[in-house]
Amino acid sequence: MPEQFPADSVGLVTPKTLHFDQPLELDCGRVLPEYDLVYETYGELNADASNAILVTHALSGDHHAAGYHSPDDRKPGWWDASIGPGKPLDTNRFFIVCSNNLGGCRGSTGPVSHNPETGALYGADFPMVTVPDWVRSQARLADALGIGQWAAVVGGSLGGMQALQWAIDFPERTRHCVVIAAAPKLSAQNIAFNEVARQAILRDPEFHEGRYAEYGVTPERGLALARMLGHITYLSEDALRAKFGRELREGKINFNYDVEFEVESYLRYQAETFVRHFDANTYLLMTKALDYFDPAADHDDNLAAALEHVTASFLILSFTSDWRFPSSRSREIVRALQDGNKRVTYSEIVAPQGHDSFLMPIPVYRDLLQAYMNRVAQEANV
Amino acid sequence: MPEQFPADSVGLVTPKTLHFDQPLELDCGRVLPEYDLVYETYGELNADASNAILVTHALSGDHHAAGYHSPDDRKPGWWDASIGPGKPLDTNRFFIVCSNNLGGCRGSTGPVSHNPETGALYGADFPMVTVPDWVRSQARLADALGIGQWAAVVGGSLGGMQALQWAIDFPERTRHCVVIAAAPKLSAQNIAFNEVARQAILRDPEFHEGRYAEYGVTPERGLALARMLGHITYLSEDALRAKFGRELREGKINFNYDVEFEVESYLRYQAETFVRHFDANTYLLMTKALDYFDPAADHDDNLAAALEHVTASFLILSFTSDWRFPSSRSREIVRALQDGNKRVTYSEIVAPQGHDSFLMPIPVYRDLLQAYMNRVAQEANV
Repeated sequence: MPEQFPADSVGLVTPKTLHFDQPLELDCGRVLPEYDLVYETYGELNADASNAILVTHALSGDHHAAGYHSPDDRKPGWWDASIGPGKPLDTNRFFIVCSNNLGGCRGSTGPVSHNPETGALYGADFPMVTVPDWVRSQARLADALGIGQWAAVVGGSLGGMQALQWAIDFPERTRHCVVIAAAPKLSAQNIAFNEVARQAILRDPEFHEGRYAEYGVTPERGLALARMLGHITYLSEDALRAKFGRELREGKINFNYDVEFEVESYLRYQAETFVRHFDANTYLLMTKALDYFDPAADHDDNLAAALEHVTASFLILSFTSDWRFPSSRSREIVRALQDGNKRVTYSEIVAPQGHDSFLMPIPVYRDLLQAYMNRVAQEANV
Repeated sequence: MPEQFPADSVGLVTPKTLHFDQPLELDCGRVLPEYDLVYETYGELNADASNAILVTHALSGDHHAAGYHSPDDRKPGWWDASIGPGKPLDTNRFFIVCSNNLGGCRGSTGPVSHNPETGALYGADFPMVTVPDWVRSQARLADALGIGQWAAVVGGSLGGMQALQWAIDFPERTRHCVVIAAAPKLSAQNIAFNEVARQAILRDPEFHEGRYAEYGVTPERGLALARMLGHITYLSEDALRAKFGRELREGKINFNYDVEFEVESYLRYQAETFVRHFDANTYLLMTKALDYFDPAADHDDNLAAALEHVTASFLILSFTSDWRFPSSRSREIVRALQDGNKRVTYSEIVAPQGHDSFLMPIPVYRDLLQAYMNRVAQEANV
């Protein structure tokens, strides 16, 4: 490992790809005849495969959860704060797997892949995918890796929803379930924000009904707006105030539409970097998967009934300043689990950073996660 | 008055227009050589002009605050809940004035007016206007109407900021100041939402740097997105949940990007009706006036110092579910007034409707406003 990586980093990592030939039936009624999943692993799988952890990613995440792809990388994977030797998801003890979701744009089959039946880019023709679809595809990945049961499935935000779905759909394969900054379903306000983001993309004249690649363009304007809007909801009002307040970039008002307040500069910068590496069709698919997630829907809106057959032990974490998925939403999951006499540990973490807290190195959060994962490790005899 | 109007309505009203020849120097450094203000009045001005009330409007409001322009109107003016015979702003006692702000698009000089110096449409060349600019233009309207002092200046949201500015800039002309659901300045989050709305308009290919009228188009996409986003922030999460929940329009998920959830239908409908009658350049100007509002900025961020010379009595109202300008923002104004030993009445009203509460017929809100306005009337001997 090059010297420049921190001692508690997993260091250089290389994504792997698995091809799946068996067709996958999707909730939308369509079938993926075959597909790839790109994934990364950190740590070593032990002999009885008892130490495997699945990390599931959020809306704009991917399989690159920890470490570096090159010594020149300026930033590590998206959850490097929690994954590495000595960290809560301790790679000295666990074998950690993270895959890019189907419909993604970082290597797993999605809108930027070619449809094997036509040879053309999927683009907007890629089918809508749901959280249960993802879980089914991840289960096949587990099969391929020789993992019968995950020591834990762990995710934040949309990743937390996948973790919860794992516990519901594969109780015998989910020993622990860690659901961070998530909700059992989106609120009307959540859906409304997603809808504005989608409309920004769908109404972009460069969207061309999702076939923008054929036109050699990308709906950058719409995707940028979607990202700016998303960013506001990821941060708390306090975090925005602490970071930017009403600071003026040039110290004075200029009476024009260029950047005047620092917060405007931040949003534009975030959007510009995002549109360079993210696909608009994928963004649309991810927001729809969020909107559709509602495991209680088939049980008369009774979440406890949806969770009736889960056998996993749960850790549920929320953050005081998260207004996208506030603690009250996590407590809905906790209550439903308690109603069914399931094993659940819940903690609301005092943190000012908003929804994005789940990605950050917050000491009390790290300590709580570490304590729980120690228990998971002990049960796995690692 | 046609029978179909309610008994407590001001009935049919006709807007009036006043032309002002005297140039108006604006905060941005530019000068409006001449301008029109369109306004409506309800009730009768008494002999000593002691019963005049100025109502100031919010972002998408206008001069049509009460009554009907035609017997066929489906809806009355925007604050009909509070203005009329027997209502809190009782037209049997008060003479009520409401004008469209400069930069507006409903008759006062703004981007859709012609520049008298060039004969061309102002469009994007209309200068940026500020809350103090509006107050100066409204003072000239008061002069023209023979009103030396307002019995009260009353406004909600951006209108409340104008009321506050009146008390600061014209203490001798502002006997009472009613500031509803407002803030002494925008937060970073408020500015961020405005910035996304602006970017939606500015990046619309039909915007043409604000000269869309010359191209015979309108940036409808961008304006629609801005309005959708605004609407989310006007309503509380609870209001959205109560109104729409996760109701599916066709009772089932269709796995496409048409309207699926009722809240999506609502947002699209709101946007469609809005873009038909609102100007995108005006929308930009209004959001900038909001962002710039900060009376404490010239006083080392000391709001009490900015309010040092006010003599008005204040009523400050906020709503528990307003997350755009939460009660904590109103209390900043209250505290600053108390620090300066000013007369201030404050009430936080329990209401689930969010920021839009200030427009609604909420009984406890109506009662509080009525009680305060009774006092204003008694002092005016009406």
